[in-house]
Amino acid sequence: MAKFLTNREENYSQWYNDLVIKADLAENSVVRGCMVIKPYGYAIWEKIQAELDRLFKETGHVNAYFPLLIPKSFFSKEAAHVEGFAKECAVVTHYRLKNDESGNGIVVDPAAKLEEELIIRPTSETIIWNSYKNWIQSYRDLPILINQWANVVRWEMRTRLFLRTTEFLWQEGHTAHATREEAIEETERMINVYASFAENSMALPVIKGYKSENERFAGALDTYAIEALMQDGKALQAGTSHFLGQNFAKAFDVQFTDKSGKLDYVWATSWGVSTRLMGAIIMGHADNNGLVLPPKLAPVQVVIIPIYKKDEQLSVITEMALKIKKELEAIGVSVKYDGRDTNKPGWKFAEYELKGVPVRLAIGPRDLENKTVEIARRDTLTKETISVDILKEFIPKLLEDIQSNIYNKALNFRKENTFYVDTWDEFRDIINNRGGFVMAHWDGTAETEEKIKDETKATIRCIPFDSPEEQGRCVYSGRPSGRRVLFAISY
Amino acid sequence: MAKFLTNREENYSQWYNDLVIKADLAENSVVRGCMVIKPYGYAIWEKIQAELDRLFKETGHVNAYFPLLIPKSFFSKEAAHVEGFAKECAVVTHYRLKNDESGNGIVVDPAAKLEEELIIRPTSETIIWNSYKNWIQSYRDLPILINQWANVVRWEMRTRLFLRTTEFLWQEGHTAHATREEAIEETERMINVYASFAENSMALPVIKGYKSENERFAGALDTYAIEALMQDGKALQAGTSHFLGQNFAKAFDVQFTDKSGKLDYVWATSWGVSTRLMGAIIMGHADNNGLVLPPKLAPVQVVIIPIYKKDEQLSVITEMALKIKKELEAIGVSVKYDGRDTNKPGWKFAEYELKGVPVRLAIGPRDLENKTVEIARRDTLTKETISVDILKEFIPKLLEDIQSNIYNKALNFRKENTFYVDTWDEFRDIINNRGGFVMAHWDGTAETEEKIKDETKATIRCIPFDSPEEQGRCVYSGRPSGRRVLFAISY
Repeated sequence: MAKFLTNREENYSQWYNDLVIKADLAENSVVRGCMVIKPYGYAIWEKIQAELDRLFKETGHVNAYFPLLIPKSFFSKEAAHVEGFAKECAVVTHYRLKNDESGNGIVVDPAAKLEEELIIRPTSETIIWNSYKNWIQSYRDLPILINQWANVVRWEMRTRLFLRTTEFLWQEGHTAHATREEAIEETERMINVYASFAENSMALPVIKGYKSENERFAGALDTYAIEALMQDGKALQAGTSHFLGQNFAKAFDVQFTDKSGKLDYVWATSWGVSTRLMGAIIMGHADNNGLVLPPKLAPVQVVIIPIYKKDEQLSVITEMALKIKKELEAIGVSVKYDGRDTNKPGWKFAEYELKGVPVRLAIGPRDLENKTVEIARRDTLTKETISVDILKEFIPKLLEDIQSNIYNKALNFRKENTFYVDTWDEFRDIINNRGGFVMAHWDGTAETEEKIKDETKATIRCIPFDSPEEQGRCVYSGRPSGRRVLFAISY
Repeated sequence: MAKFLTNREENYSQWYNDLVIKADLAENSVVRGCMVIKPYGYAIWEKIQAELDRLFKETGHVNAYFPLLIPKSFFSKEAAHVEGFAKECAVVTHYRLKNDESGNGIVVDPAAKLEEELIIRPTSETIIWNSYKNWIQSYRDLPILINQWANVVRWEMRTRLFLRTTEFLWQEGHTAHATREEAIEETERMINVYASFAENSMALPVIKGYKSENERFAGALDTYAIEALMQDGKALQAGTSHFLGQNFAKAFDVQFTDKSGKLDYVWATSWGVSTRLMGAIIMGHADNNGLVLPPKLAPVQVVIIPIYKKDEQLSVITEMALKIKKELEAIGVSVKYDGRDTNKPGWKFAEYELKGVPVRLAIGPRDLENKTVEIARRDTLTKETISVDILKEFIPKLLEDIQSNIYNKALNFRKENTFYVDTWDEFRDIINNRGGFVMAHWDGTAETEEKIKDETKATIRCIPFDSPEEQGRCVYSGRPSGRRVLFAISY
């Protein structure tokens, strides 16, 4: 199977599409821009959800659920938000169908027109703050620390599986605070949660930083983001956390009485990650043989495959395999035994490589005799034979080793593809011909940012939190700059 | 707080509405018929989800995700389905808004009209079978055992929180099989999973049975249901499992090659439960003091409340409480310590009774001295004082005891309110004046069923699987009948 993947070096974009389809992660549906997330892809998403949900709860958040449909007028209430979100979206205008009188199937019933159109949520700040209005009277009602797991719809013109789809799954945190400081602290807390999830679970190093004004969320005073570098040299924004100030509280008139009895508007944050993370995992680690899943998010961490000629051999091998499976499962390792006799071992090897299963155990007749198994690592494609007696110690360590190895590989890749650039020629050359992260000085104006984007397609991915103060001159305008910012072409 | 609940005996319906709001489970949103599920309500739903998901996976199912939006024409493809589902639904007709030229906010952009309208899924058979068409060629591709957790929209005219809402959350299983027998077996398996979940986790006894033709799912050859009796004598359908035959395979042309090389249509099932289960839990167990949650689904199983006069006492009690909390959490009990000094113990007692927390521990100065705690059970409202030394053994047993006690209470209630009726006068009298489950003979015709419904509002809830063969005469028409069926007025 794997041989049918387009070569990554020849056509990265086609390689990605092939991989998503052939590894059975997702496919396009009949509805423009909407994907079907297939069981294997969804199993990875479930792992992502479980770990993020744990991290959210550990930091004091609870889940809730708000309506899918939002009255159209809500989008006009926050001035910046309407520009950013109320445009390309799915509009519900009617609530009934009826049989066509001429017998041609069903038609929209014109009598069932809504007085006010409803919008399928592209994001839920408006409907949530409209609820918070009734929940908050006093500082005692604060903070509200709520997260929602949901589907959202943004009518995208050009879509790509996981990376940009009309409907996608995500979580959106919406918090309400008594003070500016607390809200900023929350905004920072959540970008740190996202960063540590990306690094620890997804094995992807990320750069944390501020978005420039141009790239901020519609309605935010500040947007923090984590940016990861993909193997083709493009950046992928993997999560954002927004400090919304009092904008939504003002738009929806959410005031509270503080400890001194004074009335003030509530401070807000919102933060989210989506099924886009699936794209980051794929493009961060996969190779020409298929996916390379980080063990912590792999639905199957170890696959066991029998190698046999005669049916009697299969039954003995199966017995040994199931014993190993049980032993490993008892220590929390997820194991699949593929004893199907419909496919040859070679086919299975390729199949699980394609699917990115971190560890493969093969058991043949000689292994039975020697009480050994052949272990293959997906990340390095290396093999070794070890005694079954040490498997219980060996496998957990191996999984950890793979997890840190693919992280380090991605980190090294990023190091090799991060360039400190001081001239416009060099900037253009790297962006156009090589790709990667470019750290360059910028004069801080939206005008320059726009020009750089027009000329090279590169945007400011973020102003890294840890970018040191350094006197320099804007790579484009030559005007003075106090620190480097991160440029790249992005997904 | 609890005293503000409407009395259940005076106005059951208002009592229910009050309880949902005051126990902070859910509220109506600004969008007609769409609810906000608040954190406490959602935490119960998460427990329901976790356990059902475990049961689905244990029976070999995997999760996936299909699009929210379905092309209108899909609903016309299955003749019965269109009648049942393509009517009251949310229709997306446009994909863009724009600024009103006269400056009055935003309007629907008439240029962005969809060629074919999209329907927000009321259920997903059509879009899923349209996908399965591409997934299934041979018997080797079968069975497909997929479940989806999702939101759906059905434009309901009269809505009630959890029981009937325009948008609701649910899971929908959609399976594909090579044979009729296998599909029927799956349909049965899942109604059994639902029944055992209802009885074991929700502590609600249910009657499993077949739906009459009138009450079947639109497009099903057979619908199995579980029916629970609520405290006001009405029935609540708590889950359904449908044997769809080859109807959807034919509508979407899904054929497979069987082992003998013959082409045949695929056999289907679908099955689902929804946030309606929240309503069943509330109306199955709650009382005039508030919710009574089954321990297995309670987000907080034990609440600890300090009783003190002086602040020094609070700090010592807190220390003891946190030690108990830690000990109980270590054995898997979820515990909340409410040490807030903003509310009196009496207020807290009422609050956690309202919220249905199964066990309350109160610790006062005398308990400190004696190394005791006062334990109150939510189900019986009884109290006893026990030594802290035995808490670790006592609490898990107590939780089990509460779980089975509320199950038995509901079971006894059902026994006392199930009537075997042989005359039409008695039937009408019980349905009109008393409520409950009525087991009566029925002649098997849709006509009689309709007439009974018209005259009494009672419907056939199901033909119980275990209803014994018994010669009798239809309670309405007097025609012969071979077994009793279950009638009730239902939610």
